[in-house]
Amino acid sequence: MEEFSFIKWIKNQQKRDKNVPIDIGDDCASIKMNGKKLCLITTDMLVEGTHFELKKTTPGQVGRKSLACSISDIAAMGCSAKYAVVSICFHRETKTRFAKDLFLGMKKIADEFNIKIIGGDIVSNKKLLVINVAMLGENNGLRPVTRSASRVGDALMVTGTLGGSIVRKHLTFKPRLREGLMLNKKFKLHAMIDISDGLVADLQHILAASGTGAELYEDKIPVSPDAKQLARKTGLSALDHALHDGEDYELLFTLSQKESEKVLDSGFFSTRISKIGYVKKSMGIELQKSNGEIRRIKPIGYEHFK
Amino acid sequence: MEEFSFIKWIKNQQKRDKNVPIDIGDDCASIKMNGKKLCLITTDMLVEGTHFELKKTTPGQVGRKSLACSISDIAAMGCSAKYAVVSICFHRETKTRFAKDLFLGMKKIADEFNIKIIGGDIVSNKKLLVINVAMLGENNGLRPVTRSASRVGDALMVTGTLGGSIVRKHLTFKPRLREGLMLNKKFKLHAMIDISDGLVADLQHILAASGTGAELYEDKIPVSPDAKQLARKTGLSALDHALHDGEDYELLFTLSQKESEKVLDSGFFSTRISKIGYVKKSMGIELQKSNGEIRRIKPIGYEHFK
Repeated sequence: MEEFSFIKWIKNQQKRDKNVPIDIGDDCASIKMNGKKLCLITTDMLVEGTHFELKKTTPGQVGRKSLACSISDIAAMGCSAKYAVVSICFHRETKTRFAKDLFLGMKKIADEFNIKIIGGDIVSNKKLLVINVAMLGENNGLRPVTRSASRVGDALMVTGTLGGSIVRKHLTFKPRLREGLMLNKKFKLHAMIDISDGLVADLQHILAASGTGAELYEDKIPVSPDAKQLARKTGLSALDHALHDGEDYELLFTLSQKESEKVLDSGFFSTRISKIGYVKKSMGIELQKSNGEIRRIKPIGYEHFK
Repeated sequence: MEEFSFIKWIKNQQKRDKNVPIDIGDDCASIKMNGKKLCLITTDMLVEGTHFELKKTTPGQVGRKSLACSISDIAAMGCSAKYAVVSICFHRETKTRFAKDLFLGMKKIADEFNIKIIGGDIVSNKKLLVINVAMLGENNGLRPVTRSASRVGDALMVTGTLGGSIVRKHLTFKPRLREGLMLNKKFKLHAMIDISDGLVADLQHILAASGTGAELYEDKIPVSPDAKQLARKTGLSALDHALHDGEDYELLFTLSQKESEKVLDSGFFSTRISKIGYVKKSMGIELQKSNGEIRRIKPIGYEHFK
């Protein structure tokens, strides 16, 4: 099965609903409440063996990550996160201590972002721990930032540093909720996404939704120390890790060059923000090297189905 | 782990939120929107091997069931179902045909109840098919019916017939959404729940939440033909199946004796509705046999953790 063509097929099975301005295919869906008030909703499933290994994590880290991924989806819309409902499939012989530690990991990050866990479902099986978080957000009178409105000439910007998240960041990342909301409130963003599949793969999602292409500046990509450390083991370059590793959960966004300069000059953010390239008309993604040489990048990233 | 004491522990970890009149521990949570408008939310996870066997079902039936369970939770509040977001963990080698059939099973029942599927998440693993549906509902100006307000002297009523759902009904049941809404609109209900764990187990949830007990009339329990058929194989009585089998997804509700007579006389329902007992002060559940003899029933039902 090809994941993204399946999602496109699903989208085409249904009529648009005037009360659902944003539906399948973005980081969140949005539902009209009254006036300008929108309710945002996102759902994320984390599965043992795919998103975490119980041998390498504490239950609290798994709980934390499950909530953090959904918070990141709301961050990617430039909105506020409010409520979560949580479904957990435990191993049948789970100890109460494990279950409590998992929940406390959720609760700690929920409290940190002022999110309430208001309901859930608990089931069991013999094989796998599975967690699903559905999260509700609100738009605070703002327009949610979708993936589909990047414009030719836009600057491409990214929060934080990229690559090597498997070393630790996929369990410890801080969702960019405050940054996303601040960016949406103070600047005219055109498109935004959170980087879960990898910089190039998620950039491709923006470009495909917007019908545009992009050029990246090789020496402007904020390569993380963990990408460098990982590169020593894998034989890939640190840049490759920054371009293609999944689960960075940084924000990638586009806006006019003028607005991008305002972001850099604003002093609003303690988080690093980098201008890494621009949106262009011709489809595809190219990498401009420091010596001026240009190479085309294949849009590879994490794919669930082989 | 003991499931219900864990849920109680979770509930006690958090402060009440004035904007969340109903939170952890009922069929849905509710969130205040504006004025009397409430948003309801429920989440349900279905796991291969626990809730369905792929050898015994079609993908369309699995998809249908995953949505139907959430619709039933909203039915149990006497409210309307509106939107769903769906997370699916497929086997890694899933064929597109299988995935499409699964979705079409969801879509068919969604259309039947005028529910829109507005978002989702697709992941993969090597072992299990897992589906989570989070569903939003609205209260249409009505008070959602909780589990916790049954009163001593209330009549106990139930829709449909009970027991033996494993024969077929757990895959084919029609959620009692219209019945739940009609009951809430036209009659003064005190408490309601959908029967997923079994009549006795779910009655126990109402009684525990309300601090009451109940007496059931043995000859008034609507035993299903499938319960009778199953009893011939299992050696249990058909009544035992009606009392304890899970996944009937009928509505169990309490209301004054006077209101219960109005329900029976109303002619509003094409679905069978039976008065099966009453709420009493002393804790526990008793069964009154047709010969007047009374026996105490142990509150057994489906338990996820052994």
